[in-house]
Amino acid sequence: MILLNGLPEDRISVLDRGLQYGDGLFETMVYRANTIEFLDLHLSRLMLACKRLNIEFEQIQVLKSELDSVCKFLSDNNAVIKIIITRGSGGRGYLATTGIEPTRIISTHELPRYPTDNVNRGVKLRLCAHTLSENVALAGIKHLNRLDQVLARNEWHDPDIAEGLMQNSAGNIIEGTMSNVFTVKDGRIFTPMLDRAGVAGIIRAKVISLAIEQNLSIDECTMTYDDVLSADEVFITNSVIGLWPVNAISGKSFSVGPITQTIQTALQQAQK
Amino acid sequence: MILLNGLPEDRISVLDRGLQYGDGLFETMVYRANTIEFLDLHLSRLMLACKRLNIEFEQIQVLKSELDSVCKFLSDNNAVIKIIITRGSGGRGYLATTGIEPTRIISTHELPRYPTDNVNRGVKLRLCAHTLSENVALAGIKHLNRLDQVLARNEWHDPDIAEGLMQNSAGNIIEGTMSNVFTVKDGRIFTPMLDRAGVAGIIRAKVISLAIEQNLSIDECTMTYDDVLSADEVFITNSVIGLWPVNAISGKSFSVGPITQTIQTALQQAQK
Repeated sequence: MILLNGLPEDRISVLDRGLQYGDGLFETMVYRANTIEFLDLHLSRLMLACKRLNIEFEQIQVLKSELDSVCKFLSDNNAVIKIIITRGSGGRGYLATTGIEPTRIISTHELPRYPTDNVNRGVKLRLCAHTLSENVALAGIKHLNRLDQVLARNEWHDPDIAEGLMQNSAGNIIEGTMSNVFTVKDGRIFTPMLDRAGVAGIIRAKVISLAIEQNLSIDECTMTYDDVLSADEVFITNSVIGLWPVNAISGKSFSVGPITQTIQTALQQAQK
Repeated sequence: MILLNGLPEDRISVLDRGLQYGDGLFETMVYRANTIEFLDLHLSRLMLACKRLNIEFEQIQVLKSELDSVCKFLSDNNAVIKIIITRGSGGRGYLATTGIEPTRIISTHELPRYPTDNVNRGVKLRLCAHTLSENVALAGIKHLNRLDQVLARNEWHDPDIAEGLMQNSAGNIIEGTMSNVFTVKDGRIFTPMLDRAGVAGIIRAKVISLAIEQNLSIDECTMTYDDVLSADEVFITNSVIGLWPVNAISGKSFSVGPITQTIQTALQQAQK
């Protein structure tokens, strides 16, 4: 199902700035057990991204009501729901026409069927060669300029490798192609700072707050690939997968550790 | 006029990766005096960008034939012709389906009517606050991830300012939002290196070759904003504007100098 500005329509103007310039942002959410998981957090991030990109999106109530319709349509069928907001259609070149109406797209997709072992026994990771572009002004938000992730994700086709770690140009680990990354070392949890690159995931934020609730030590840091390889535990998160422990990175094995399991259990509770 | 994969059609699938991820590239060309200016250079750059992005675009002959049709349709009407190539429609998330067919879009647009003084008396520039994202793998090519240019170009609405200079995070000048930049100092021409950010413009390449033909000294360099302000002459180039001398940057005045005029005349000859 696709709703374009509220109407069932699966095609969009070629002149929309989303296509012309990647001039927009998106959210990917899970609809499960008749609810959109962490909807408020997703909509807050969406509004924050609009603000960062100076997209004057005033249709949040309309969007919410359209999401309600989509949920009714989905009924008992779990799905991924994706929202795209673009600056709209108009403007000669990069300069947008003043007052153009942002475009809103809601699409539903089959919930990916990942192996159930991913959640319990963990997944294998690799290190991507393609590095992340860096820009303080774009860091953290889920904008539509995703060539970095596309190029990195298409480096491998081995289905046994679930995710690839991405570095910045200085060689620090920032995130996975579709996930945020956490390490545990000597009982403390770490996750890369996203001040110059990367997407600040909803589940990442949730993990940070859950760790604090559990009185676990958690810090944002500069993280090298060696830091990751020498960690006691590693796990990755995103809205669709939730939390997957990591059992191997480029041949180096990891155990699914107790802190990973504590966070995973807390997250599963929070999703209910 | 819009041709989508060869057919008159101004709407595209919402699921096209061009919209979903900015997963593609474009070319902007001028159709004037019944010919597409520097068509071969544009198509070469397009193919190079496809290669850099691993987009397997094999329809170059079809594209050329569609461009022929568009030119016939335009007849004596000058226009801007834009080509967009995306990786196509398909794939779950960032991983593209193997063997998907790239999407090709040709659109025609009115040739912008810039003041004729721009060519002779020059234009005013400003310095943009938004900096360019940096990534060796994406530098130089005209991909669809253009949020940097959009955010920079929308910093000002004063029609007297024709262009904004953009810096990288280190504070070096890289390009304009829609143009490449050149300075002249003590008889030598300089233009910023584009190894980590920026678009390697067709006219930029042409200016470099014309300067060499004219036995003028021309070099790519690291260029600070102070270097630009202390230059004897400054000019900017792109496929639509050709070459515009710069007569002021943020209040500092410049004369339209002899080397700028020499290059401009040579370029006007080459366009014929």
